[in-house]
Amino acid sequence: MTAEQASIIIKAAQKRAKAENILVNIAIVDAGANLKAFLRMDGSYLGSIDVAIKKAKTARYFNAPTGEIGKIAQPGEAIYNIEHSNDGLITFPGGMPIKDKKGIIIGAIGISGGTIEQDHDIATGAAESIL
Amino acid sequence: MTAEQASIIIKAAQKRAKAENILVNIAIVDAGANLKAFLRMDGSYLGSIDVAIKKAKTARYFNAPTGEIGKIAQPGEAIYNIEHSNDGLITFPGGMPIKDKKGIIIGAIGISGGTIEQDHDIATGAAESIL
Amino acid sequence: MTAEQASIIIKAAQKRAKAENILVNIAIVDAGANLKAFLRMDGSYLGSIDVAIKKAKTARYFNAPTGEIGKIAQPGEAIYNIEHSNDGLITFPGGMPIKDKKGIIIGAIGISGGTIEQDHDIATGAAESIL
Amino acid sequence: MTAEQASIIIKAAQKRAKAENILVNIAIVDAGANLKAFLRMDGSYLGSIDVAIKKAKTARYFNAPTGEIGKIAQPGEAIYNIEHSNDGLITFPGGMPIKDKKGIIIGAIGISGGTIEQDHDIATGAAESIL
Repeated sequence: MTAEQASIIIKAAQKRAKAENILVNIAIVDAGANLKAFLRMDGSYLGSIDVAIKKAKTARYFNAPTGEIGKIAQPGEAIYNIEHSNDGLITFPGGMPIKDKKGIIIGAIGISGGTIEQDHDIATGAAESIL
Repeated sequence: MTAEQASIIIKAAQKRAKAENILVNIAIVDAGANLKAFLRMDGSYLGSIDVAIKKAKTARYFNAPTGEIGKIAQPGEAIYNIEHSNDGLITFPGGMPIKDKKGIIIGAIGISGGTIEQDHDIATGAAESIL
Repeated sequence: MTAEQASIIIKAAQKRAKAENILVNIAIVDAGANLKAFLRMDGSYLGSIDVAIKKAKTARYFNAPTGEIGKIAQPGEAIYNIEHSNDGLITFPGGMPIKDKKGIIIGAIGISGGTIEQDHDIATGAAESIL
Repeated sequence: MTAEQASIIIKAAQKRAKAENILVNIAIVDAGANLKAFLRMDGSYLGSIDVAIKKAKTARYFNAPTGEIGKIAQPGEAIYNIEHSNDGLITFPGGMPIKDKKGIIIGAIGISGGTIEQDHDIATGAAESIL
């Protein structure tokens, strides 16, 4: 994940959020799950800073959309309360792995500020902007 | 949120709690979700110090009453386990955004010590004391 | 330390700071070193919220003015780097134990925002306001 | 601090760093000391992610260049070991308050990755890019 790629993805997310009148926080992590880029849109939730970053990290930690992880992190399910690891995970939708043209995961994006469906859609669309 | 406004709100909360024989902790944060004022009533729970502060922060982080956030943070709901973000959130009632006369959110209040209904009522009434 | 005493002490600190045109954060802890009351003056440093609270806790943790603790927390001295304990201490001036009329320590005050001399003077004067 | 201002400042910092062949992490916080934008240049230190963010927060917490704070945070000086507050501060150069055209502080920038002189120069120049 280069700084250029991260900037393209952030702009794509910002553009899509603006077009739909959604205010979001956008976080990008690299293959090492380390923060690469971040942008908070004006007027978006302060609490979404950390949620967006944790969604991006969670998606890369386990190479899966956060919503998929959340399904098996429910009470009684396989990895219940996994959120207690890694200084806190977020396991509802809005985090997506980012792949390059060869399909190799090079990082992840986390979106927070809209509904979980909106966050998921923005993350998915933005992740594909570098393909 | 000025120190004067915060002091008025704390006194309003304290007065209402006393009138109903409820012992509470009262926390006020500003627009940046930073602590502005705090008061612990004599005999109230020690554990409510942090709960009150986290309720206030949570209400400002997401611009909503904490109880509303809690409804969609239940198992199986949209933002389950969001409490793992932001160094810990409290998502049951007792936290309320504070608005000025123009309706702009200038901070939030968190009340802890009574039942969740009592905490919510005190927070709501106190938040309106500066209108 | 009652809520009434804490409120008197905070007002005394605020009055003194205003008279000298100093912007401070004021924190009061009780005998258990738990936060009892807090006020941030308008325009004072955001970073002083935590510094004021940690000064008050430090003064009560060790029943001494924070500046006295700091003297023996220097490199090579007796309790070097004690700040690593208790989730972080502040050992420069501005924290003072608060005693009642019988000389019993009932809590502590922490002031942050001015110079260390100003913070110390405001803390000392305010602590004596309930005697 | 708007997202647009933050983006301009990040680009200015990135441009200056590139021109001097320095690899840095760039963090921007708003007036409430909350993260607004971030970018890590390719090949820059992973450890500088957190250093850059903490420099920006420290500069806003105390409305001063981090290097100025560091001068009085040395052993034996006025605010020795203040770094233990606020979940960790960074008090060497590279953090600068950001002012608007009227001179009001609207946030801060933190640069980490070069020498402290380089980090300071990049932060200073970038902060002025919106004037």
